[in-house]
Amino acid sequence: MSPLKSWFSIPRGSHFSIANIPFGIISTPTSKTPRVAIAIGDHALDLEVFAANNGFSALSTIQPHQAVFSQPSLNSFAALGRPMHSVVRKYIQSVFAQDTPYPEVLKTNSALQKKALLPLKEIQTHLPFRIGDYTDFFAGMNHAYTCGVMFRGPTNALQPNYKHLPVGYHGRASSIVVSGTPIRRPNGQILPNPTAEKKVPIFSPCKKLDIELELGAFVCKANPQGVPVPIGEAEESLFGVVLMNDWSARDIQAWEYVPLGPFNAKNFGTSISAWVVLADALEPFKTEGLENDTEILPYLQEKDTKSSYDIQLQVELKTQSGNSSTITKTNARNLLWSFPQMLTHHTITGCPLQPGDLLGSGTISGTSNSEMGSLLEQSENGKTAVKLSGGEERIFLEDGDEVTITGVCGSDEEALVGFGECVGRIEPALEF
Amino acid sequence: MSPLKSWFSIPRGSHFSIANIPFGIISTPTSKTPRVAIAIGDHALDLEVFAANNGFSALSTIQPHQAVFSQPSLNSFAALGRPMHSVVRKYIQSVFAQDTPYPEVLKTNSALQKKALLPLKEIQTHLPFRIGDYTDFFAGMNHAYTCGVMFRGPTNALQPNYKHLPVGYHGRASSIVVSGTPIRRPNGQILPNPTAEKKVPIFSPCKKLDIELELGAFVCKANPQGVPVPIGEAEESLFGVVLMNDWSARDIQAWEYVPLGPFNAKNFGTSISAWVVLADALEPFKTEGLENDTEILPYLQEKDTKSSYDIQLQVELKTQSGNSSTITKTNARNLLWSFPQMLTHHTITGCPLQPGDLLGSGTISGTSNSEMGSLLEQSENGKTAVKLSGGEERIFLEDGDEVTITGVCGSDEEALVGFGECVGRIEPALEF
Ligand SMILES: [Ca+2]
Ligand SMILES: [Ca+2]
Ligand SMILES: [Mg+2]
Ligand SMILES: [Mg+2]
Ligand code: NI
Repeated sequence: MSPLKSWFSIPRGSHFSIANIPFGIISTPTSKTPRVAIAIGDHALDLEVFAANNGFSALSTIQPHQAVFSQPSLNSFAALGRPMHSVVRKYIQSVFAQDTPYPEVLKTNSALQKKALLPLKEIQTHLPFRIGDYTDFFAGMNHAYTCGVMFRGPTNALQPNYKHLPVGYHGRASSIVVSGTPIRRPNGQILPNPTAEKKVPIFSPCKKLDIELELGAFVCKANPQGVPVPIGEAEESLFGVVLMNDWSARDIQAWEYVPLGPFNAKNFGTSISAWVVLADALEPFKTEGLENDTEILPYLQEKDTKSSYDIQLQVELKTQSGNSSTITKTNARNLLWSFPQMLTHHTITGCPLQPGDLLGSGTISGTSNSEMGSLLEQSENGKTAVKLSGGEERIFLEDGDEVTITGVCGSDEEALVGFGECVGRIEPALEF
Repeated sequence: MSPLKSWFSIPRGSHFSIANIPFGIISTPTSKTPRVAIAIGDHALDLEVFAANNGFSALSTIQPHQAVFSQPSLNSFAALGRPMHSVVRKYIQSVFAQDTPYPEVLKTNSALQKKALLPLKEIQTHLPFRIGDYTDFFAGMNHAYTCGVMFRGPTNALQPNYKHLPVGYHGRASSIVVSGTPIRRPNGQILPNPTAEKKVPIFSPCKKLDIELELGAFVCKANPQGVPVPIGEAEESLFGVVLMNDWSARDIQAWEYVPLGPFNAKNFGTSISAWVVLADALEPFKTEGLENDTEILPYLQEKDTKSSYDIQLQVELKTQSGNSSTITKTNARNLLWSFPQMLTHHTITGCPLQPGDLLGSGTISGTSNSEMGSLLEQSENGKTAVKLSGGEERIFLEDGDEVTITGVCGSDEEALVGFGECVGRIEPALEF
């Protein structure tokens, strides 16, 4: 299948090809109210302006719902459901197609092009959803195994429950920020001498500030309290996917996490990319995840095991002195559990999900050092420095470090389905 | 100080004396839009109607903000800040006072009395806040100790971090329900034979469904991301307190919680009482909590150690056959950490809080059996049956059991500051 061509100029290699059409929330210096847009090439199409100027004149099904494009989040659009997302995406693709059946909508409408097509450089992106609840899973089995070996040795590296259920914990929804937001190094309690008999913590800026390379999936469908979502219906509840960096304070975590799990170590900030790639756009890139050699309970068994995504992921670290190094290259298929499995497990007790809820995948790592999605793994918890370009090295993040995650599906430079980037820069801790 | 008398008929022993004035969200069969009210005696004062009929004519400071009383949650009222809550509560007390300076507002205004004073029996209460994030702490040291002894023996009963920081975990905001909402027994993964070498879970209705007697505190002030709330300012961020029952699936929890903490075991439902008692109303009942024999870091040190509350708490269990037994009598002072300490610790890394966020205290237990706030403790994880009236007994909850938590401050029957009740009844699990 040769890729769809567009009359609109989309640079080769753009993450936002006509095959993609990701959704986000934007504002501009002259129009500061956040609203819905899609990204295409180097531009955003402002869907509020597009809708107000009869952009959807040839798509009657969306017309009663056009107010969703004036909302400051994607929650209302998402709540319209997967069939509507699909129809809207396909319509926008057809509007941009070389041989569009609706040239008058945009192709030959230079007035609307001027109003609605905004260079990405000139817009601001915002958090795409009002996030009601955020859950972070631990489905990156290579990460779980490597960390398990580090702390418990190879025999007990994975806990007995690991292959039976997608382990997860409730995260802090209010701490999620959009790509580009600076991340302040947290202060907290750390144990200066963890092996001492007497455990006496000190108050200190985090000394083991780390990244976690993850995917995030947004929920688009509510289930009532007490009513689980069957695995066969879970995909209908998933809107789309973003890149995620679950910044983690390893030293704070080590001291606080027994027995109720990570808390302050994870609640100071989690970054996500601004453009949400629809589940529909990812459909052609479905693939098998990591093999589970354990028989799982029926409520988690998927008909189609191609439920992970083939997304090439990359992490770049740029130091304050300007040296930039690719520290991680891996693939999103490195997950033991799929998002439908996570979602079904989440609701099996009757937990109610809402449109806008965010599910994190857990840290995605391959098996070799350069494929690992955290510095904890790469530096073996501080033992081995990670070499950077320009002769620099890191065991954990330093102030001024800027971390950029990118992710992209496909190899046809005219049909990439990419996520853009998820970037954050470390600011020094507050002084007390 | 003799208690304030009222011209309005408030039954002796009412939790909602003129000394209280708790806030909540109500609707009625003829006016279904949820709005703000206070409870007084056996009545609610509908503040939307009260405001619309010049009820606040003698309180000019609230007049520009009266729209908050028409909101379906207390979030906007709470966001006005502690000084405003204080002024509004005092004004309402003065309106109800025997010798009110404003008789024309309500005392002699029988038309408004008819419209705005609604019998509690005839109204419906709703969740008082739109809860952005919910965090559950573990500050009930007796509970933590008793459970620790059960699972790890007396030497390591409390983890090394326990007395240095308020241990907590992020909970599931969407699962919080108002008193009266039925709770469906969850299904999930449980380990039928936990001591077997090979751990193979089964799918089953929870067999160890439990209660957790807790307090919940609502946040009224936002802190920006990256900016902690100093301990001296934490009280200004606390709106008020409710009773809370953190229903817990002990068997699901035992299997799932390693290493990231409780998840499905806690996300199927948490009940809170409908009327939020303002921090101001609790001020006279401040007392010392449990003593901490460990030196804590300065950021957690309070000037005034009277930062817990003297609240008499009680749990009643009514079985399907109608037998009702008081299974727990204890006091809210059984906490090692105060809400200001929990809030400050929560934000020390820079975690942003919002008005409407909920902080749970952790299970409140005394040291003797009849003072314990969970069946896990009382039955020693199922070993010893708890005797109920009518010859019945329980190790954990059975279908049809109704659990009612009550809490009250003070002993003067004309000046109680009470919480009403937090009630929930167990429905059978869904069949698969
Ligand atoms: Ca994570
Ligand atoms: Ca609890
Ligand atoms: Mg995080
Ligand atoms: Mg709960
Ligand atoms: Ni419709």
